[in-house]
Amino acid sequence: MDLGTEGKLQLVQKHIRAFPDFPKKGILFRDICPILKSPAALTAVTDLFEEHVRNHYQQVDLIIGLDARGFLFGPLLAQRLGVGFVLVRKKGKLPGTTVCVAYDLEYGTAEVEIQEDAVAPGQKVLIIDDLLATGGTLYAACELMKKQQAEVLGCMVVIQLKDLNGADRLKPHGVFSLLQY
Amino acid sequence: MDLGTEGKLQLVQKHIRAFPDFPKKGILFRDICPILKSPAALTAVTDLFEEHVRNHYQQVDLIIGLDARGFLFGPLLAQRLGVGFVLVRKKGKLPGTTVCVAYDLEYGTAEVEIQEDAVAPGQKVLIIDDLLATGGTLYAACELMKKQQAEVLGCMVVIQLKDLNGADRLKPHGVFSLLQY
Repeated sequence: MDLGTEGKLQLVQKHIRAFPDFPKKGILFRDICPILKSPAALTAVTDLFEEHVRNHYQQVDLIIGLDARGFLFGPLLAQRLGVGFVLVRKKGKLPGTTVCVAYDLEYGTAEVEIQEDAVAPGQKVLIIDDLLATGGTLYAACELMKKQQAEVLGCMVVIQLKDLNGADRLKPHGVFSLLQY
Repeated sequence: MDLGTEGKLQLVQKHIRAFPDFPKKGILFRDICPILKSPAALTAVTDLFEEHVRNHYQQVDLIIGLDARGFLFGPLLAQRLGVGFVLVRKKGKLPGTTVCVAYDLEYGTAEVEIQEDAVAPGQKVLIIDDLLATGGTLYAACELMKKQQAEVLGCMVVIQLKDLNGADRLKPHGVFSLLQY
């Protein structure tokens, strides 16, 4: 049975839980674990991402996924598209020569990196994560791609928290999200 | 074209790189990133895991994946089997009520946790990660399953480092690995 786009979005939405005050007071945490636990909901997420890509891009060379929840959705999409998946990791986790970009946290900074040979100049890439909040990590991933002279086609997330204006920070790159809160 | 089991194992092996002295002197790091970058190699890994599960278990209820590289392979296998995927995460990353187990690191200890409602008593689970070294994290994941009265059918990894005897630590649970070094 094909649920159609709307039916799939509803199915995904039913598998997102909200936890107040996590990881700290005042934050409403959107939990995507129930999606992973439901084979149908996870298939729906992958279907929706795939549909978006096929409708919007003639060529995609790589899916770039963010540590760690981007790893949950990225390889599934990459396999559907028949393209490779590249890991963006927190600093210190990847062997070999790496390229690194720092980004701001609420207090201090953090760094993400990729392997230098992971992406070639001119490759067309899509960056994937579970959620867009302020966009710090996704922005850093875009910068990593720029350093490697890859072409960022856009960013894709399951959930976008509109109030935090992460999409503004990612301009000129567009953001595709399945659900907005 | 179906490569067959041996052909698939060879394809996977070709996509593993070794980096000496990472993350520190004396360690030969086995890098699985090239597998993810090759759609064919990643399909082969999933095929081999699926084949093992279908040949050995009549019923599997959940795939349990370890943060972060277990997230790369686990959802693919879970989707093939039509079952759910559950995240084992480093402490502090999961919202809601969690169950926690500590394990030894070279210096000090670390903790992993799952959401309390992620696994039900009696459920048959397989635990997946990229690599088995000393088995500390996989052992902790088995203990988490025991706490929840789930039945661990076994552990699955892409790479097993035989000299470190991780499989002994995981007994009586068996370990299935695609490649051994």
